Parts: sequence; structure tokens; C-alpha cells
Amino acid sequence: MTFAFQPIGVIKSPYRDVYTTPIQTLLNPDARAQVRVYEKFVAGLAGLDGFDYAYLITALSAVPAGDANSLQPTPILLRGTGRHVGVFATRFPLRPNSVGLSLVRIQAIGRDTIDFSGVDMVDGTPVLDIKPWVPAFDVPASAADVRIGWYAGADLPTRPARAARRKLKSATTEKER
Amino acid sequence: MTFAFQPIGVIKSPYRDVYTTPIQTLLNPDARAQVRVYEKFVAGLAGLDGFDYAYLITALSAVPAGDANSLQPTPILLRGTGRHVGVFATRFPLRPNSVGLSLVRIQAIGRDTIDFSGVDMVDGTPVLDIKPWVPAFDVPASAADVRIGWYAGADLPTRPARAARRKLKSATTEKER
Repeated sequence: MTFAFQPIGVIKSPYRDVYTTPIQTLLNPDARAQVRVYEKFVAGLAGLDGFDYAYLITALSAVPAGDANSLQPTPILLRGTGRHVGVFATRFPLRPNSVGLSLVRIQAIGRDTIDFSGVDMVDGTPVLDIKPWVPAFDVPASAADVRIGWYAGADLPTRPARAARRKLKSATTEKER
Repeated sequence: MTFAFQPIGVIKSPYRDVYTTPIQTLLNPDARAQVRVYEKFVAGLAGLDGFDYAYLITALSAVPAGDANSLQPTPILLRGTGRHVGVFATRFPLRPNSVGLSLVRIQAIGRDTIDFSGVDMVDGTPVLDIKPWVPAFDVPASAADVRIGWYAGADLPTRPARAARRKLKSATTEKER
């Protein structure tokens, strides 16, 4: 049993290969890129200009699909440690199904384009779906205190996202006092 | 050009059809369900027990795929208003590619199972991918103040998620004072 999906658009990104592409949008929030939506699907953009953030669900066509031998990769953030983690406990791009999930900040909506910031996609990546980001659906009430497995010990190479986490954390602590 | 994906597991859910299935996991946080991971992919679960939340990316097999005529549906929350919104500005399940995104709370990891709470999937829904939820990757610093388009005027039928949003909101306001 397989499920087949057709791209509804394509990413125009400054990054040409997987080696130079940042690993997460919120770790690379200032970079800009664009979705070009195929003509047939343009009507689906109506109303998206009212949102600040959206998920892009992509086909990670620039990386090979993971196979049974790659179910426990060494995540990029653990390189050099010799540690392996189950692929479903990582955001590693080589996965049994090469589906990407990117949370991007919408900058401008054109007739058939979405300019966005926050880029972790290679140029030419096919877009399968776009979903608006809504805190009531996408941020659990306990967000500030969730357990994050092996990421808790990894050095996340970024300021903005850390700041966000600290903000949530201190905010919650504040309220609980 | 199409991309074909093979399920890595299947959802066991108390909901039998789309009509009785809640629309978002955070709007139905107390319901329980399970992912049964297929034998071939079980090694990919290692380490997932350290996380509180994960995304399940699913194939929405219980709904027909949207076509060119369904690019501007009336979202469930706008029923009766006669309003239509571009499908990419909604989480409506009939989409050009029937890909579902569910943020679930992990309750227990078995050898080949994930027990979770927060259920918006029909029983039998194929699972394509599992990704751990990490606030540094999944919550923008400005989360409390993002624009949410037409959802801002819709009556979200839930307490928990609203409480979460208020908590973020008041927390941020607190800090900015």
C-alpha cells in the first residue's frame, strides 16, 4: 500500500545542496525564500495573507529516502559523539518517508507566490501542502516544560530559538509562583 | 511528478468515521489512541520515550482528496456562515494532498506501539512519519502575538487550547511591561 502525492508548488531557496542548508527554520530565521504555487492550486492561497506563520510540508527530494539500515542515525547535532538515535526521535532528513515539515514566517503573498523567512529547504524542493499555524492547535498548554529527549543535552546552534524557549520557560515559572 | 510514501504504522483510534472525529488534537486532549508501528520500522522508535510530544504525519485515507473544485472550502468552524477560505489557509481535511499533521502527547512507548493522548484521527489512518516536538524548532519567539487570519473571528470550541493561548499571551505581556 502506498500513497502518492503531487506537488502543489516548489521552493525557490538560496541553498543549493543539503550540505549548506541549515537544519531548522527557527535556527535560520532571517534567511528568505519563496514558494511558487502551481497555477492549478493558486485559488487555495486566499486568506493566507492573514497569518504570520504557516507549515510547509515538503518532499525531501534532495536527500535519499532512509532504508532499514538508517533507522538509527547520528543526528547532525550529535555528530562526533558516536551516539545513535531512533529516526522517529529525530528531525534527521533521511527518513523512511522523506517528508519535511518547515514552520515559516509569511512575509508577503503574491498571486502565485509566498515570500517567507526561516529557511531549511534546498532549492527546488517540492511542496506538498501548506497549513496555517495557529497557536491554539500547535502549542500545548505545557509547552514551556515539555521533555525534549536527547535534544536536552545537545547544543542547539542558535540564539533566537533559545531565547524563545527561555521566554516561554520564565513566563510559565512566573505564572506558577 | 508524484512522490509515493509507504505507511510506517497505523492509528488505532476510538473514532470510526470523519463525522464523529474531533478536528484537532489540542481541542480533544483527553482522548487516547495508539500508533502501531510496523515491524520493519520498530528500531526507529529508540529514544522517543524521552519526549512529551510528537508530530504524527498521516495519510488522510478516510477523506477523499480535494480537487480543483475544493480549493476554497467552508471550514468546519465557519459552517453556516457561507464563508469560503483558500484551503491552504485552513486545516480542512479535504486538501489537494491528503496529508494530516497531528501534534500528540506521548503517554507510553511499547516495543512497537505509541500510546498517546490528543486524538483527531479516524481509526485505521496510515502513519507516514513521526517527528519529535521541540519548542526551539516549533514555537516562534513571537508565538503569543501571531496573526491567525480568519481563525481570530471563529469560535474555537475548546477550553484547554484557549487557556494555553491566554497563558502565552499574558506571559508575554507580563514580560514586556
